Amino acid sequence: MNSRDTDRKTPGDDIQALLFDVFGTVVDWRDSITREMCRFAETNALQADWQRFALDWRALYQPAMQAVRSGERGYVKLDVLHRENLQQLIKEYHLDHLTDDQLDHINRIWHRLQPWADTLPGMHRLHRKYLLASLSNGNIALLANMARHNGIPWDAILGSEPTRGYKPQPEVYLQSVDMLGLSPAQCLMVAAHNEDLRAARALGLQTAYVNRPTEYGASQTVDKEAEEDWDYCADSMTDLAQQLGC
Amino acid sequence: MNSRDTDRKTPGDDIQALLFDVFGTVVDWRDSITREMCRFAETNALQADWQRFALDWRALYQPAMQAVRSGERGYVKLDVLHRENLQQLIKEYHLDHLTDDQLDHINRIWHRLQPWADTLPGMHRLHRKYLLASLSNGNIALLANMARHNGIPWDAILGSEPTRGYKPQPEVYLQSVDMLGLSPAQCLMVAAHNEDLRAARALGLQTAYVNRPTEYGASQTVDKEAEEDWDYCADSMTDLAQQLGC
Repeated sequence: MNSRDTDRKTPGDDIQALLFDVFGTVVDWRDSITREMCRFAETNALQADWQRFALDWRALYQPAMQAVRSGERGYVKLDVLHRENLQQLIKEYHLDHLTDDQLDHINRIWHRLQPWADTLPGMHRLHRKYLLASLSNGNIALLANMARHNGIPWDAILGSEPTRGYKPQPEVYLQSVDMLGLSPAQCLMVAAHNEDLRAARALGLQTAYVNRPTEYGASQTVDKEAEEDWDYCADSMTDLAQQLGC
Repeated sequence: MNSRDTDRKTPGDDIQALLFDVFGTVVDWRDSITREMCRFAETNALQADWQRFALDWRALYQPAMQAVRSGERGYVKLDVLHRENLQQLIKEYHLDHLTDDQLDHINRIWHRLQPWADTLPGMHRLHRKYLLASLSNGNIALLANMARHNGIPWDAILGSEPTRGYKPQPEVYLQSVDMLGLSPAQCLMVAAHNEDLRAARALGLQTAYVNRPTEYGASQTVDKEAEEDWDYCADSMTDLAQQLGC
């Protein structure tokens, strides 16, 4: 709870929709990729540090999106960027003998990422009161398949692909809000990343920080805590639900 | 069941996703508008033939979209077209003394349309096996609110707004299919309208006709039956689920 809450009769009663960052906030990409790759390695006689592989793959994510943000290349969906990034790692991780089908299977791990333990209990409580939408850099197929796989209760999949951009580009937030027929102030951006919330707040959205201090594992240096007085700061999705009176 | 089914071991096993027309196929817009307007009229001392109002409002739908399809005006979402069309009817139906808020409330009846009796039982069965997405000319807020209101199990809301066009423009179908990461042949277009299915089939989608011979009421002249040998022809959404082995 922070100082803004003292003005509220019921917390969150001015909010119509919650917009979620997904990778790191809703799902644990590092652990999901590590576990799938360990299983894949076992049946395919591969050996490597698969947690380092997950971190290395993820490290190529921001530079790949930056090429689209800067206009250096036109919009391409994240599945394509993930596949290109995977290609950069196949030598180092001895994946170069795999078939295209096998590499596509690995690429689609992103469609099967697992939620944090508190994600589904929290989101199902939030869903009773609010419209829930993704506002992720993931593409629609990735997010829809992930939701089917896990039972994530999205009312709409927004963000990157419908707006053909990548966060933190302002139009990704503003067009997503517009697609819900709402004003920015009626929307609460939920993210484990301070940068994401800074971009959202600058555009007039409300902000909720969900702390995920192990997203990157022991080596994590950023986003270990809230860096500003976000409208809500929560330790988990169930804590957020509690704070919003759900 | 039709002749193509004899080739199949399990019906529908080549299909990954079902894409639904919504107005008329999933929901009964005529009855929903009529009933809401009767209630609204009662509390606001209005009198008119509200079924005729529903039909008149709907009759302005195709011409309004045609202005966007032809390029005469840029893309605007269906909520805006509905509101403009409503404005054309306010004199005739004595709604001109209503406030903007009241007219907006009437316009949002489209967000609250009710499903046909067989829709939810059928769609929940289909959802266990297939990814379900809307491929409607409705905008995202309209469809997301309608789904929340009724419990329609969409995995994704596609169609007009994410592709910035109006059916039967080919890109609305093809971009929606691409957003699911699928090929047209992996998608089954479900509609109560022969024209919609003709457009979908011409682009390589599979087709399912759901008969809704009372969509327009007693005066209905079109879409009283399947006019081609669609891949599936069903009397209801539960019949379609049955045919697809759900």
